Amino acid sequence: MPVLSQPEAMANTAPPVIILVRPQLGENIGAAARAMMNCGLYDLRLVAPRDGWPNPAAVPMAATGADIIENATVYSSVGDAAHDIGFLAALSARRRDLPVRYADPRQTSSEILGHGGRSGLMFGPEASGLDNDEVALADCLVTAPLNPEYPSLNLAQAVLLMAWEWRVAALAATDDNGLTRQDADRDTTSTSRRDPAREPRRDAPASIQERDRFHQRLEAELDAGGFFISPEMAPAVKRNLRALFARAAPSSQEISTLHGVIQALTKTRNRNKSG
Amino acid sequence: MPVLSQPEAMANTAPPVIILVRPQLGENIGAAARAMMNCGLYDLRLVAPRDGWPNPAAVPMAATGADIIENATVYSSVGDAAHDIGFLAALSARRRDLPVRYADPRQTSSEILGHGGRSGLMFGPEASGLDNDEVALADCLVTAPLNPEYPSLNLAQAVLLMAWEWRVAALAATDDNGLTRQDADRDTTSTSRRDPAREPRRDAPASIQERDRFHQRLEAELDAGGFFISPEMAPAVKRNLRALFARAAPSSQEISTLHGVIQALTKTRNRNKSG
Repeated sequence: MPVLSQPEAMANTAPPVIILVRPQLGENIGAAARAMMNCGLYDLRLVAPRDGWPNPAAVPMAATGADIIENATVYSSVGDAAHDIGFLAALSARRRDLPVRYADPRQTSSEILGHGGRSGLMFGPEASGLDNDEVALADCLVTAPLNPEYPSLNLAQAVLLMAWEWRVAALAATDDNGLTRQDADRDTTSTSRRDPAREPRRDAPASIQERDRFHQRLEAELDAGGFFISPEMAPAVKRNLRALFARAAPSSQEISTLHGVIQALTKTRNRNKSG
Repeated sequence: MPVLSQPEAMANTAPPVIILVRPQLGENIGAAARAMMNCGLYDLRLVAPRDGWPNPAAVPMAATGADIIENATVYSSVGDAAHDIGFLAALSARRRDLPVRYADPRQTSSEILGHGGRSGLMFGPEASGLDNDEVALADCLVTAPLNPEYPSLNLAQAVLLMAWEWRVAALAATDDNGLTRQDADRDTTSTSRRDPAREPRRDAPASIQERDRFHQRLEAELDAGGFFISPEMAPAVKRNLRALFARAAPSSQEISTLHGVIQALTKTRNRNKSG
């Protein structure tokens, strides 16, 4: 007997994984699990929860999401937590000084449905949100068009908002009757809109882990080549490079090609080093 | 001077009033106020709150919604609380044996926008939900298409879900182009529809010439590093690398960074060559 109930059949894609990065309050983790249960999401991953794990404070707030809490997995880094994820969206109340792609929640849900592989939604700690380094790992940064006077959602509220948007989109994608008629009908005049059948056929993007490893190698080689002249600027330059490649969403094959590029460019240098 | 900030101009109708009927936990009232603030709703009405009013437990959870808590008004019945409301929607996790009209959250938001007068969203107590008598006062009963295994949202989550749906609909209705922002973003060929405020803060892509020069240099260095093992395959590999970078649409500044990457990675090699 499966430990977790399976979501009812509704979309071709699996529900997105929820990744909570350095969550502070067990109560919020529990409330997030309840919101996941409400919307039919089941895979909860925690990166370095502040108060350790398991956390008894999470259970009462989870309500029938208790199984989700019990089966939550813990990681030490975002890269590890996203090891099998091909499309990762980072949530933030505010825009960043990062050359990432921005999306809103509804657009992100469409992308999740359109992406063949496993998707993830990543949320930062209550007080501070995600680090820029964490955001730079993501395919897009999601900001919701909330009240500019106070756009900061409670953590579990942010999870609900994204899980709900995914659910409505997934139901619409699988429902013959079209639950969200007004959305489906809204853009009927724009024939120039993207037609998935006309999109170039591309391999699925590499996993976040593959991309992270490529960047770790690139950064190490750049370091060895004296690229980072100013140590204070190095983190920002690395983030910008990561964001640049993230925009291209390279496939596994392309990541492999990029490893070959590094190898070719550093060939003599590394041979000298070992010689 | 108004005690409450006014919502930014966005829809012709006022934001809906939130009516919490016999709410039990002050914390939930506070969290509901925060969700209202996040979405630009300001009028909170309480019908017979269990623990009386004011309730100090509501304040910490309200965050910057504290003014909403302070200005909340208390009534003894739904009829009184809805005295000035022309369109009232009742929220429920479950359907009732009542001849009411059912609606989903998105449809309800459209109705709120279409209704000239003041609208209200009514939520029942945490444990039991609204009485049938209370539901019968409403114009429609809203049930969200949530996980049938556990459709029961936390009270503040239900408020957020409805407030968010109203906000997205209201933003779409006030958009001059009559499009929601995600629709505008989706249609990448129609630059006139794009909302610059929602575009990623990025520099313009580099010219084709700048990108071409970068690739010529990269290809020459890769050639020197023995990257192109098979001469017949070289043109295809080069094209694929160009396509990969083209997808990222690098800016002039980024092209310059990429030149620096080539220089750093080939540093010793080229020094040896010239030495």
